[in-house]
Amino acid sequence: MRWCRFQAGQKTAFGIMEGDRITEVEGSPFESYSVTQNKHDLDKVSLLVPVIPPTFYAAGINYPEHVTWAARMRGEEPVLPKKADIGYRASNALIANGENIIKPKDSTTEFQYEGELVAVIGRTAKNLSRDEALSCVLGYTIGNDVSERTWQRGDRTFWRAKNTDTFKPMGPWIETDVDPTNLETTIRLSGRVVSQFNTGTMIFDTATYISEMSRYLTLYPGDVVWMGTDGATENMVPGDVCEVEIEGIGTLSNPVVAED
Amino acid sequence: MRWCRFQAGQKTAFGIMEGDRITEVEGSPFESYSVTQNKHDLDKVSLLVPVIPPTFYAAGINYPEHVTWAARMRGEEPVLPKKADIGYRASNALIANGENIIKPKDSTTEFQYEGELVAVIGRTAKNLSRDEALSCVLGYTIGNDVSERTWQRGDRTFWRAKNTDTFKPMGPWIETDVDPTNLETTIRLSGRVVSQFNTGTMIFDTATYISEMSRYLTLYPGDVVWMGTDGATENMVPGDVCEVEIEGIGTLSNPVVAED
Repeated sequence: MRWCRFQAGQKTAFGIMEGDRITEVEGSPFESYSVTQNKHDLDKVSLLVPVIPPTFYAAGINYPEHVTWAARMRGEEPVLPKKADIGYRASNALIANGENIIKPKDSTTEFQYEGELVAVIGRTAKNLSRDEALSCVLGYTIGNDVSERTWQRGDRTFWRAKNTDTFKPMGPWIETDVDPTNLETTIRLSGRVVSQFNTGTMIFDTATYISEMSRYLTLYPGDVVWMGTDGATENMVPGDVCEVEIEGIGTLSNPVVAED
Repeated sequence: MRWCRFQAGQKTAFGIMEGDRITEVEGSPFESYSVTQNKHDLDKVSLLVPVIPPTFYAAGINYPEHVTWAARMRGEEPVLPKKADIGYRASNALIANGENIIKPKDSTTEFQYEGELVAVIGRTAKNLSRDEALSCVLGYTIGNDVSERTWQRGDRTFWRAKNTDTFKPMGPWIETDVDPTNLETTIRLSGRVVSQFNTGTMIFDTATYISEMSRYLTLYPGDVVWMGTDGATENMVPGDVCEVEIEGIGTLSNPVVAED
């Protein structure tokens, strides 16, 4: 099943997608909903960020080759994380599929993508074992954890390096029927494949993260957990289009433009 | 003017307080509202967290004596932050005035309060100068940035050290008519004064933080910015009551209990 959130005229609603057709629902998959008689063609609506999360979680470093690459960038020895310590991103930075990633005037050339699997929480959950952890997940979408590396190295927090407005493309929709432990992820920059990895190489998988988190935190419907990226990342420049494709989900595509 | 959010029976609403009387409003101070004829006595309602923020910002280290104390705790030389780099906390951890702070079973004795001024954003804002920064603030409330110091030192992020459920008391209400640059803050643990400082000693004041943030981030109605605490902090134990009083706003009071 595929859930989207869309705008048609002045109206925003959640919808169930079948191919290029959207059946509008009243309510949302996060509370209760009823299917309406209203149908829309995908090309006649604007897809929105599929959910605005109450809390926006992000694993950060969670793939071995990305750890190695990031350590080399900082001139340090790679150290794999020993625990599933979750981090945070901020909703102000979210944009939908197709919207512009705006490169700030004062950003450097080290302006980079990170393509990621995103777990979308569907129900309130606390104290889940690893085996039952995925039972609270509604489905999966795709995120691009856009990062300005000089700010990431120099600032005390990731506030502007990772949370400047437009730095968090998420979408295009939520797919409920995929296995998060074995999804091929392909990142393309203006058509050229720049990264390819499988979600099976995560250091701590989605179930482990959610189980660990739920020991201390209540997870709420609509919360999202971004699961990290693998490998090296390259610079994006205005004029580029960055696409993150995850098999079984779809493709998140966003142009890069310069700030006015 | 004093804004609260409250529950009376099954109903939750925003209200305007005059002394111990609450005038219920329809809508909210963050969008539009109309005053109703419904009045409530403060002791007949439950005060709720005054706002659930779309994004929950926190300055972290923002007072000189707290920097010195925290550095000593880590065996390092104190280094004052050079820029107003904002951090994040998470809404799952919010509790209202009077609700229990739950000390987790596996937490250590280093379980501590941090009393803080909280700025509540009232309107959408971007690119504000320092002079105009406070124009986007609806008012101020009080926060207790409860922290488990061994997790704070040992984990890769502050996820459970500062964002375990119940670790973020906020309230009791939002006061619109105070000057954030000169507010005496008093923290009491079971009646004993354990810390006293003035918000005028912040390293970067509220206006500076908001102005710097708004260069990169759009601030939204309901966002909160926790402004940090000063000085050393002490351990809390189950049975304690932690009170944070800020002159002109009120007192945020929460009992500490052990996890079942």
